[in-house]
Amino acid sequence: MNEMRIGIIGLGNMGTGHAQYLAKGQVKNGVLTAVCDDRQERLEWARKELGEQVKTFANVEEFLGSGAIDGVIVATPHYSHPELAIKAFAYGLHVLIEKPAGVYTKQVREMNEAAAASGKVFGIMYNQRSNPLYRKLRDLIISGELGEVRRTNWIVTNWYRSQSYYNSGGWRATWAGEGGGVLINQDPHQLDLWGWTTGLKPKRMRAFCQFGKNRDIEVENDVTAYVEYENGATGVFVTSTTDAPGTNRFEVSGDRGKIVIEDGKLTFWRLRVPESEFNATFTGGFGQPECWKCEVPIQSGNGEQQHAAITQDWVNAVVKGTPLLAPGEEGINGLMLSNAMLLSTWTDNWVDFPIDEELFYAKLQEQIRQSKTTKVAGEYQTLNVQGTH
Amino acid sequence: MNEMRIGIIGLGNMGTGHAQYLAKGQVKNGVLTAVCDDRQERLEWARKELGEQVKTFANVEEFLGSGAIDGVIVATPHYSHPELAIKAFAYGLHVLIEKPAGVYTKQVREMNEAAAASGKVFGIMYNQRSNPLYRKLRDLIISGELGEVRRTNWIVTNWYRSQSYYNSGGWRATWAGEGGGVLINQDPHQLDLWGWTTGLKPKRMRAFCQFGKNRDIEVENDVTAYVEYENGATGVFVTSTTDAPGTNRFEVSGDRGKIVIEDGKLTFWRLRVPESEFNATFTGGFGQPECWKCEVPIQSGNGEQQHAAITQDWVNAVVKGTPLLAPGEEGINGLMLSNAMLLSTWTDNWVDFPIDEELFYAKLQEQIRQSKTTKVAGEYQTLNVQGTH
Repeated sequence: MNEMRIGIIGLGNMGTGHAQYLAKGQVKNGVLTAVCDDRQERLEWARKELGEQVKTFANVEEFLGSGAIDGVIVATPHYSHPELAIKAFAYGLHVLIEKPAGVYTKQVREMNEAAAASGKVFGIMYNQRSNPLYRKLRDLIISGELGEVRRTNWIVTNWYRSQSYYNSGGWRATWAGEGGGVLINQDPHQLDLWGWTTGLKPKRMRAFCQFGKNRDIEVENDVTAYVEYENGATGVFVTSTTDAPGTNRFEVSGDRGKIVIEDGKLTFWRLRVPESEFNATFTGGFGQPECWKCEVPIQSGNGEQQHAAITQDWVNAVVKGTPLLAPGEEGINGLMLSNAMLLSTWTDNWVDFPIDEELFYAKLQEQIRQSKTTKVAGEYQTLNVQGTH
Repeated sequence: MNEMRIGIIGLGNMGTGHAQYLAKGQVKNGVLTAVCDDRQERLEWARKELGEQVKTFANVEEFLGSGAIDGVIVATPHYSHPELAIKAFAYGLHVLIEKPAGVYTKQVREMNEAAAASGKVFGIMYNQRSNPLYRKLRDLIISGELGEVRRTNWIVTNWYRSQSYYNSGGWRATWAGEGGGVLINQDPHQLDLWGWTTGLKPKRMRAFCQFGKNRDIEVENDVTAYVEYENGATGVFVTSTTDAPGTNRFEVSGDRGKIVIEDGKLTFWRLRVPESEFNATFTGGFGQPECWKCEVPIQSGNGEQQHAAITQDWVNAVVKGTPLLAPGEEGINGLMLSNAMLLSTWTDNWVDFPIDEELFYAKLQEQIRQSKTTKVAGEYQTLNVQGTH
């Protein structure tokens, strides 16, 4: 295949963005040939803005079976990602899903199994993996420059959302509509990067979610989580939608020093000798390893091109057989952290990894049943709110 | 009283420091008249360095009952602070204790009761309360400039201690000798300031201590704690002795913005209108309160004079009747946080405030009984290690 024919399902904010850069030819060897949405206004927009060569569909099956596409970008509401991806694989299509991979790991595991069985290229829109800051962090850790990781600490409280935001869509911040709050809507990138940059595997977690804190919503919007990793390291993740101004500060400590990402900068305090070596040989009582504050070059990056970069990576994988930067199968990792934080709160107890997916699913259903929200979840299908992430 | 006669019990590093600035006349209206230590070498040092007018005692009762002093600074090992303070009150003396107030809250509560019954002036050497950075933080919070506090986050992992440090004294880092690790030895100031600067009252805590992490010791040297306060705010405290280089970053978020103390600097991001007001009136969907990064003047301070400042404050309280900056009775607050972190780990459960002091005491005794350390706790009495904090 020299050119990949791409379809998009879901023309909300994200799907519209993907359509626009594809229509502008910003993805080499990728051409937009079809879109699908059940909202007539979005299809009219597509006919007007994307040109006649892009077919429009209101019916999913017709779209997937049209023969007009080799792969599909799934940009629909969270809950439907796995279901649509599984359908697409059944039609022999390559798939790129928007984040999060889904709402609960049970459905995402099933999607991963379908992907593996299909042999198709399966990606996820973890565009932050193309952010040079996080790529450099991963590089410094995976290459061993930081030494074995001992501690992670991510304060990501800069997801401010007002009540007005929550009121802007009936599905928003409901268990039935979105399946969660800040963890499922705002944090998926950070939850992915937390594991992807460090390579750490969580062993168990204890987390503390607060629901509707300073907001009239039913889902979590303030979370503190503590994790113990398989290698003995520990970690903290703090997130919120009501802190103003919030913080986005990611600190990782290792045997060879400390790295902090904050304010769009990465700083590496590097030890001259590893701490473990210093500790084993030092005899002076007080004293600590010599440390250098290092300036590490970071490639300049354009945030707006990150989505196109992930799509390009997916197209390259299909056309050239190159490995994916963000394999779809890895979407379950960040989601499992998110699910674990809720589950630990609901059970008021530790959660071991991998989590009990059936228990989480049952607890989520319980939340949906007990929901007292007056919001109408179905609205999700008929609204297009610009600015959603 | 125009001049207060001061005695010091315990001429280790801290007691020696107090003796030196007192002997130099750096505390107005305070004069050093006696010292007590059961180590002859320390008494010889005192006779040589402090002058003939300072009496020396090897026996505590003779020292307290000598009639040569109006008040005593207690600078002995942690466990003995309450016992000696209670004795001193019984002799009608004013008391200034070194931190921590004690090792377990049961003994500290008894000390507080004895202090109240005595009517004497009871202070604690929380010298960081005289640090202009933390005084300003408290000022900004107590005066309402930050608005109601919503979140605290203190990463204080810059207490690096090598194995060599732990090996430098037999009592060090043992349950019998010091009664704990980083919490009781390195963190008392931060545990005090955490509450003193914010005015927050803890409601319950869940904490995760690791014992002997990367070190051959039996006590905790790596801690992550999560706290929920009475006003609904939450907090995190992370501390360690093995991170190199560590971090000391204290962030407090409130309804009117955010303050961060790091690298000896205080930064205040102030909202133009309180977040709660913005949230109640904003109708724009996405958007957040206007925020100003403010430069707040901080009085320059001399860290070395902080101890003398607390002693001066105590002398002023005795001589002039002024209120104490660091009342001894408040020593129980930071200690209770420290005890709660251990207790939550030992019981693998939540700890409600005030903590169950009998349960903590029983658990501590259990640790002492089960101790496999080959260190000799009694050594504490006969060693003088310079540089201890």
